[in-house]
Amino acid sequence: MNDISVSKEVIRRLPRYYRYLEELKGEGVTRISSRELSDRMRVTDSQIRQDLNCFGGFGRTGYGYNVEELYEEIGKILGLDRIKHIILIGAGHLGQALANYTNYRRRGFCIEAIFDRDPEKIGMKVYGIEVQDIAGLEAYLSTHEADIATITIPKEEARIVAKRLVSCGIKAIWNFAHTDLELPEDVVVENVHLSESLMSLSYKAKEQRKKREESGQ
Amino acid sequence: MNDISVSKEVIRRLPRYYRYLEELKGEGVTRISSRELSDRMRVTDSQIRQDLNCFGGFGRTGYGYNVEELYEEIGKILGLDRIKHIILIGAGHLGQALANYTNYRRRGFCIEAIFDRDPEKIGMKVYGIEVQDIAGLEAYLSTHEADIATITIPKEEARIVAKRLVSCGIKAIWNFAHTDLELPEDVVVENVHLSESLMSLSYKAKEQRKKREESGQ
Repeated sequence: MNDISVSKEVIRRLPRYYRYLEELKGEGVTRISSRELSDRMRVTDSQIRQDLNCFGGFGRTGYGYNVEELYEEIGKILGLDRIKHIILIGAGHLGQALANYTNYRRRGFCIEAIFDRDPEKIGMKVYGIEVQDIAGLEAYLSTHEADIATITIPKEEARIVAKRLVSCGIKAIWNFAHTDLELPEDVVVENVHLSESLMSLSYKAKEQRKKREESGQ
Repeated sequence: MNDISVSKEVIRRLPRYYRYLEELKGEGVTRISSRELSDRMRVTDSQIRQDLNCFGGFGRTGYGYNVEELYEEIGKILGLDRIKHIILIGAGHLGQALANYTNYRRRGFCIEAIFDRDPEKIGMKVYGIEVQDIAGLEAYLSTHEADIATITIPKEEARIVAKRLVSCGIKAIWNFAHTDLELPEDVVVENVHLSESLMSLSYKAKEQRKKREESGQ
């Protein structure tokens, strides 16, 4: 199918569909109606049908959706059906947490290398992978394939390392540093701004508290 | 000011404004024009002015915005001007990474306690806080204030613990478990679905690669 026909909003929702379909597969469910999926995902029945209609031919009246087919198709669209080599920058707690990400292999993500500048971490094994000196980054990337670099280091260093990565040909970055990386347009960046997430929560909690106080709870 | 007059879309953008204003303060910048902020944040000048106009009176023609005033006002809206007591559920790598979150204190977030069920972690000190047995969660919450619970444990356990937290009166959860928690409407949840973030990156990287291949790079 032609991805161009699938709108950005639908694409943004695809990972969540994938996650739910994976759970259904794990439970041995082979088919599901839009209504059941709607109840499960807390999304309207009509949105489910509209979104999944973009992939044409998966919904059958009276049958619903074939879980495996939909799962595979969405997986292909998301690029999960191919191997993606990941390198991790930063072997601190966050880097180590991400190195052990259990969903990776099933979705084609392979952690190939971990880099740090701290002598205490260099040489340490993290889930079987030995932490390398980040001074060797360019040398490593000149002889190894890497699709995605995950950045978990402080922001000042993150900006510098991001430029080094891009110079070596890295085209996709998963960024946990508390900053926006300013990189060429052909480099895709997925930011995980934990500070912004927590600030959003603070706002929502504050609004809920106001509601409770106003209703005299 | 009345928060109701500020739309959801603007609210969603506030944490990012706050982060940039904090950087500007750190650099000693006292005032900034919408144009300069626009260049810095890579957002249109008109969006900046529209968004910040919601807070009325901060923009002055020919002067721009006072960084400190705007920072304080946005901080208040986001609830960052009060203390928020946080408890962490899970003392693994991710939990430990979040326990050391350097921006916390400045924004009023205080980690008060960390819980785990692993005997090897119970009693361990994480940034000065001793990990407690999660069996004591209810007892702790009956004698201590907690505004936010951060969940960093696997999904099956996360659902159970979330219910325990809600039973003890927790009204706000920062959820890193790979699942949607099904909780009462008055409990606010901020999900950080790392798996979905990575799948989004995989999609974007795939699309960029297609573009490169089509343009013969």
